[in-house]
Amino acid sequence: MATVDRWLLPDGIEEVLPPEAARIEAARRQVLDLFHRWGYEFVVTPHIEYLESLLTGAGQDLDLRTFKVTDPYSGRLMGFRADITPQVARIDAHTLRREGPSRLCYAGSVLHAQPRALSTSRSPIQLGAELYGDASPASDVEVISLMLDMLELAEVPDVHMDLGHVGIYRGLARAADLSGEVEQRLFDALQRKAMDEVAELTEGLPQALASMLRSLAELCGGREVLELAQACLVEAPSDVHAALDELIAIADALGLRYPELPLYFDLGELRGYHYHTGVVFAAFVPGVGQSIAQGGRYDDIGADFGRARPATGFSTDLKTLVTLGRMPLAETAGGVWAPDSHDLYLWQAIQRLRRAGERVVQALPGQGEADAAELGCDRQLSLREGSWQVVPLAT
Amino acid sequence: MATVDRWLLPDGIEEVLPPEAARIEAARRQVLDLFHRWGYEFVVTPHIEYLESLLTGAGQDLDLRTFKVTDPYSGRLMGFRADITPQVARIDAHTLRREGPSRLCYAGSVLHAQPRALSTSRSPIQLGAELYGDASPASDVEVISLMLDMLELAEVPDVHMDLGHVGIYRGLARAADLSGEVEQRLFDALQRKAMDEVAELTEGLPQALASMLRSLAELCGGREVLELAQACLVEAPSDVHAALDELIAIADALGLRYPELPLYFDLGELRGYHYHTGVVFAAFVPGVGQSIAQGGRYDDIGADFGRARPATGFSTDLKTLVTLGRMPLAETAGGVWAPDSHDLYLWQAIQRLRRAGERVVQALPGQGEADAAELGCDRQLSLREGSWQVVPLAT
Repeated sequence: MATVDRWLLPDGIEEVLPPEAARIEAARRQVLDLFHRWGYEFVVTPHIEYLESLLTGAGQDLDLRTFKVTDPYSGRLMGFRADITPQVARIDAHTLRREGPSRLCYAGSVLHAQPRALSTSRSPIQLGAELYGDASPASDVEVISLMLDMLELAEVPDVHMDLGHVGIYRGLARAADLSGEVEQRLFDALQRKAMDEVAELTEGLPQALASMLRSLAELCGGREVLELAQACLVEAPSDVHAALDELIAIADALGLRYPELPLYFDLGELRGYHYHTGVVFAAFVPGVGQSIAQGGRYDDIGADFGRARPATGFSTDLKTLVTLGRMPLAETAGGVWAPDSHDLYLWQAIQRLRRAGERVVQALPGQGEADAAELGCDRQLSLREGSWQVVPLAT
Repeated sequence: MATVDRWLLPDGIEEVLPPEAARIEAARRQVLDLFHRWGYEFVVTPHIEYLESLLTGAGQDLDLRTFKVTDPYSGRLMGFRADITPQVARIDAHTLRREGPSRLCYAGSVLHAQPRALSTSRSPIQLGAELYGDASPASDVEVISLMLDMLELAEVPDVHMDLGHVGIYRGLARAADLSGEVEQRLFDALQRKAMDEVAELTEGLPQALASMLRSLAELCGGREVLELAQACLVEAPSDVHAALDELIAIADALGLRYPELPLYFDLGELRGYHYHTGVVFAAFVPGVGQSIAQGGRYDDIGADFGRARPATGFSTDLKTLVTLGRMPLAETAGGVWAPDSHDLYLWQAIQRLRRAGERVVQALPGQGEADAAELGCDRQLSLREGSWQVVPLAT
C-alpha cells in the first residue's frame, strides 16, 4: 500500500486511503463476481470465535499466528481469525451439511500476531474459494483453474505455478515407520533442502526407502521431474504411486488448459504440510519471495466438526493482488458540482441525477467553482432560464 | 440473521450463510455506491490499532466495549476496533490533512466485548459516512439526508427520526458551573427522565437555570417542542440559543426535503454525549428498541490527532439494514450446467460463457443433470453436431 501511516499504526497493520481504497473495493467485487460465475457461493465468517473451533485441524502454525482474548461472557478463550479456510470448512461440515459437493467463497480481513514472513502484512484481506465433497483431481483442477483466472483478471503479469503433493512424502514416511519427532525433523530438513541432515536422518532406514526419501529434495524442476519421480519411486508403496498419479493427472489437465503457463514441480516442498493431505500449489511472480496465491487439498479438516469431507481450495491477499496486478481502476465518470443553496428545486435536481447514477457533490458554505475540479467534478448544476441544468464547468 | 450457529459460536457473534450472505454483499455494494454518488470517498481502516489511537477522544463507553491484546512486537496494548468513526477522524486529521472539506465513508466489521444492548450483535458490520471541515448546519443536513437516502435504498419501512442537540444541555451546565461529577449525575438523570433526581441535583442553582435544566427532560415531542424550547430557554446564555437555532435550521431544511418524514425532538436525550458536540440524530422503526442508524456532530475528535476539524456523520449496521429492509436480492440469472468432461473445447465454451457474465457450474465426477437444478442452473452445455451449445435442461 502506498500510504501507510507507520507512525501511528503497529508494524504490519495498514490503513488504505483514497484512491487506493477504491481500487481494493473494485478488485474485491470483480473477484467475488468471478467466483460467483464459477458457481461459488459467498459466506461471511466471524472475525472472532472460540479458540477450539478456530484452530481445530489447522495445525500449530495457525495457533502461533492467532491473537487471543478471553470472552467476558463465557470466560472461554477466543481467537481472532488468522485464516478463513478452517472457518469455511466448519461451515461446510457442521452448518450446511449438504450431501453433494459444495462450492464456497469468502473475502475478509484476517489478523496475524506474527506475520507469515518478515516485512509482510499482519492484516491481509484474505480472499478464497473452497470446493468440498469431491475427492477427485477434477476438483483440484477446477480450483487451480479458478485461481489462475483470478490472477488473470487482476492482470498479475509473469505468473508461474509450483505444484507438489504431500501424499508422496507422507506415504514414504509412513512406510519407513518414522516416529513423530524424526518425521518432523526430516520434514524440516527437506524444506531447507539440507541434504546432509536428510542423509543423517534416513541413515538407519532400509536402503530403498532411504534413497527414495533423499531423492525428494532433488525432485524439483519442470515437467521432466514427474517422469524422473516415477523412476525414482518405483519401489514405493502404492499410496505414493497413487499420489504421484494424481499429481500427473492434475499437471496434464493444467497443461492442456494453460499451455503457456510455466509449471514447476517440487516433491520435497510441503507447504502447509500439517493441514494439507494431497496436492499443494502456489503461484509466484518474479521478484516477490512469497507466493501470491496458494492452496491445496485438505481432506481431513472437517472431521473434527463431525464430518470428514474431501476439500480443496486456495486463497490470496487482496491487497497483494491489487499491488502486483495492473487491474485498471474503473473510469470515474467525473461528477456534477452543485452550488451551496437551500433551493428545493436544486435538491430535487441533485437527487434525480444521483438516482440516475451520477456523482453529485454539493458545495458547502464558502466553497465555489474553484473547488469543483479538485473534487473530481467536470460539470455543474446551474440555474438557467428558471430551471437547474447540467452545464460544463466555467473553467 | 436467519442461520446462526449458536452452538459453536460465542454469544452475539454470527456467521452468514448463503443466500443471506449474497444479500449482505449486494446491500454493501449498493450503499457504498450511493455514498460514492454523494461524493464520499471510501477508506479502509485497520481492524487493530494501538489502544491510545483507537480510544482517543472517543470516551469511556468505547473503552469498555473494546477487546484488548498485547502486541508481541512492541509490547504495547492494542485494541480491536469497536467503532470505525474515530479511526476515520484520525485519517482526516492526521493522514489526509486536507485544507477544504473532506467526505469519507467506510464499511467493515467491528467487535464489541460488550454488546450495545442486551441481545444485540457483538459483531456488527459498520457502514458510515463522515463529513469533515465544515461547521455549518448544511453539513449536518447533508449527512442526515444521506442517511435517509440509505434507509430508502434499503427499503426500510416506517422510519422516524429523533433529533437533539447536546449544545443545549452543555451550555446550561456550563452556565450553572456544575462540577464534573454533578454534571455527570444530572446527565444520567436526564437520560432516564428521573424528574425527582433532576430536581434534587438542580436544587442549589439559581432559579432560572434550575428551571431551564429541569425543562429539558420535558422538551420532547413533535415540531412544537422547538417553539416551546425557545420560550422555556429565553433566559439561557447565547451559546444555548445558538444551539437551538442550529437545531431549528436543520429541522426546517429536513422538513422541506422530507415532508412525509416523522421528526421527533428530545432536548434531554443526549446520545453519545461524551463524543458529540452538536446535533445528534437517530432513525428508528416501530418494534425495534435500538436506533437502526445514528450519528451527530463531533467537532473536537480530531484535536488529539493534531488538528481539531469540524465533523459530522452517521453509521449503521449492515446486517440490521438487510434484516429490516426489503431490499430485493438481485435476480439471479440462473446458470449453465456443464458435464464432467476433460474436453478442451468444453473448457473453452465454459470460459467464453463465464467471460460473457454467465454463471457456469461444471459437474464433478458422479454428478449428472439431476444435480443441475439444485445448483441453480436452468440451462446446460450439450454437444450438438460437433459443437458445445447452450440448451435447456432436459427436465
